[in-house]
Amino acid sequence: MKKLINAVDDVVKEQLEGMAAAHPDLLKVHFEPNYVYRADAPLAGKVALISGGGSGHEPMHGGFVGMGMLTAACPGEVFTSPTPDQMYEAAMAVDGGAGVLFLVKNYTGDVLNFETAAEMAAAEGIKVQSILIDDDVAVKDSLYTAGRRGVGTTVLAEKIVGAAAEAGHTLEYCADLCRKVNMYGRSMGMALTSCTVPAAGKPTFVLGEDEMEIGIGIHGEPGQKRMSMVTVDEITEMMAMEIIKDGPYSRTVREWDQENSAWVDKDLTDEPLKAGDNVIAFVNSMGGTPVSELYAAYRKLAEVCEANGLTIVRKLIGPYITSLEMQGFSITLLKADDEILKFWDAPVKTPGLRWGV
Amino acid sequence: MKKLINAVDDVVKEQLEGMAAAHPDLLKVHFEPNYVYRADAPLAGKVALISGGGSGHEPMHGGFVGMGMLTAACPGEVFTSPTPDQMYEAAMAVDGGAGVLFLVKNYTGDVLNFETAAEMAAAEGIKVQSILIDDDVAVKDSLYTAGRRGVGTTVLAEKIVGAAAEAGHTLEYCADLCRKVNMYGRSMGMALTSCTVPAAGKPTFVLGEDEMEIGIGIHGEPGQKRMSMVTVDEITEMMAMEIIKDGPYSRTVREWDQENSAWVDKDLTDEPLKAGDNVIAFVNSMGGTPVSELYAAYRKLAEVCEANGLTIVRKLIGPYITSLEMQGFSITLLKADDEILKFWDAPVKTPGLRWGV
Repeated sequence: MKKLINAVDDVVKEQLEGMAAAHPDLLKVHFEPNYVYRADAPLAGKVALISGGGSGHEPMHGGFVGMGMLTAACPGEVFTSPTPDQMYEAAMAVDGGAGVLFLVKNYTGDVLNFETAAEMAAAEGIKVQSILIDDDVAVKDSLYTAGRRGVGTTVLAEKIVGAAAEAGHTLEYCADLCRKVNMYGRSMGMALTSCTVPAAGKPTFVLGEDEMEIGIGIHGEPGQKRMSMVTVDEITEMMAMEIIKDGPYSRTVREWDQENSAWVDKDLTDEPLKAGDNVIAFVNSMGGTPVSELYAAYRKLAEVCEANGLTIVRKLIGPYITSLEMQGFSITLLKADDEILKFWDAPVKTPGLRWGV
Repeated sequence: MKKLINAVDDVVKEQLEGMAAAHPDLLKVHFEPNYVYRADAPLAGKVALISGGGSGHEPMHGGFVGMGMLTAACPGEVFTSPTPDQMYEAAMAVDGGAGVLFLVKNYTGDVLNFETAAEMAAAEGIKVQSILIDDDVAVKDSLYTAGRRGVGTTVLAEKIVGAAAEAGHTLEYCADLCRKVNMYGRSMGMALTSCTVPAAGKPTFVLGEDEMEIGIGIHGEPGQKRMSMVTVDEITEMMAMEIIKDGPYSRTVREWDQENSAWVDKDLTDEPLKAGDNVIAFVNSMGGTPVSELYAAYRKLAEVCEANGLTIVRKLIGPYITSLEMQGFSITLLKADDEILKFWDAPVKTPGLRWGV
């Protein structure tokens, strides 16, 4: 294993120290428990948007802490869920009185630990809502997930809901918006190579010289199928068509009912994309794939969208939700209405995403 | 070779098509000869800043075309110099009457072809200046270079001089500023893995399981030395100290004298960094190294700078001048005075770099 690290045990801590050293104007880092939070938090009267998950997906989530996006992020060890005390202490630190929205990717460990943290924060009188992202159309259940995994839509949700929180919208408004973004977003990814978790010291999986994995998860967990390499046009069309033809997808999610201090089950069914829809197109590098290859994929994606009556009205192209140094990419299409576009276009200033300021 | 491409011969063309499809608001692409140019060019009365070089270093240069940075970029085939007709036609297309500044990385092919293009443009009555970037402290001469190679400072120069051009400064002012930025900037890089040029189909070089190359060039050309892996702290300190202790470095460069329509030799000697200097710190991924590892390097770089009396006043961290999917990173330190910082902070809107707008 060759990596730009010191001791394996210090990887996450030292990367966080580097972020704190690089961006003191935007964020601070609290250690033990670890969380990244806005330098100007708490923001009185504004909803605090908190996400988190295993490390190794940078810039998500810590790199999206700042004006107009996340208020705090809780990084676990590499590909390992953060613990409830991280989210709880982050919530206590950044709540500005308007409540805390947990934005949770659908992985079993993340879901359980965010639920515990929500209960702990609610017990302290903090208003809490918790919304799940489960947008990966590749597989229904997976190694770490009951139901679909949460992937690329998470980045878009953090930007859009973060802008709504910045604009002073209520916790209920932000939660409804976040739920809508999840229902409107669909993703799929693929890998050319594995990544190596520092603590493991060897690749998570092995692909042959001419092999790729379609529908891979962001932790290197298996996807739909292994197959021989084909062209970027074929890969892009394959993934885009699975996204476009997907649905409706029904699931039951647990959300926190703060009035009754209890979890309630909600049945949610999303609607498939359809001709005439506007979409935000997100072409994401898994970390080791250069941006030049993403543009080759975007070229084909634009063709496929047009052929299916979808208009790409905004795009994001680059490494935003990664799997360490894995080579590969993912596509996310998010149906975009005026409300979503308004918040997408709002200024954002974070280490990982910035415009308008 | 596994890459997200179609036919090997179409790699550059299709990546450019993807950029054109993704960013019609910012840029257009002209094919045969290939150049990327601002959608709103020519800009009457403003200097046109044009760079270029082999493809494979994206987002540099095409990804830096847009408001406040490059007016045009001329991409060659992967790791291959663009031809004179590319720069000449780009100059003819984007000149707004205030002249054209060629920003050239010091590689023999690039230098020769930009010189030919400058002569061709001057013969058509276009005011031309041409400034060389030669900031790599690792090696004096190299496989593709007489004198030092042009690397990371190129990105910073494109941002800073692009802002000056945007602000309406004269060609002479922009050329002087660009020369200063080059004299103030120093870089060094290293690699953990090779990259694979599509047309070659196999890795440019091979490093052992526990080996790295220090002082590598952005085309995978050899650097100072191969050695066994050490920690990111040791690597960062080694490279940062070579940068900090470097100089003075003397070289003779050719610049175009438009009054006499002739090339003149200029003897230039830069001054070493010294305690008390402010610097812009640029920690750059070679393409395959995730941003998380760059933060580990930044953490140490900040310590080394502080210990040597340098104050980091701005920073740029991410993949900006890459070598396809090569793993590794480079460090650039640019001495920053008020003039440089004013232009650094100015708004920029390109696919690869954006803030303030």
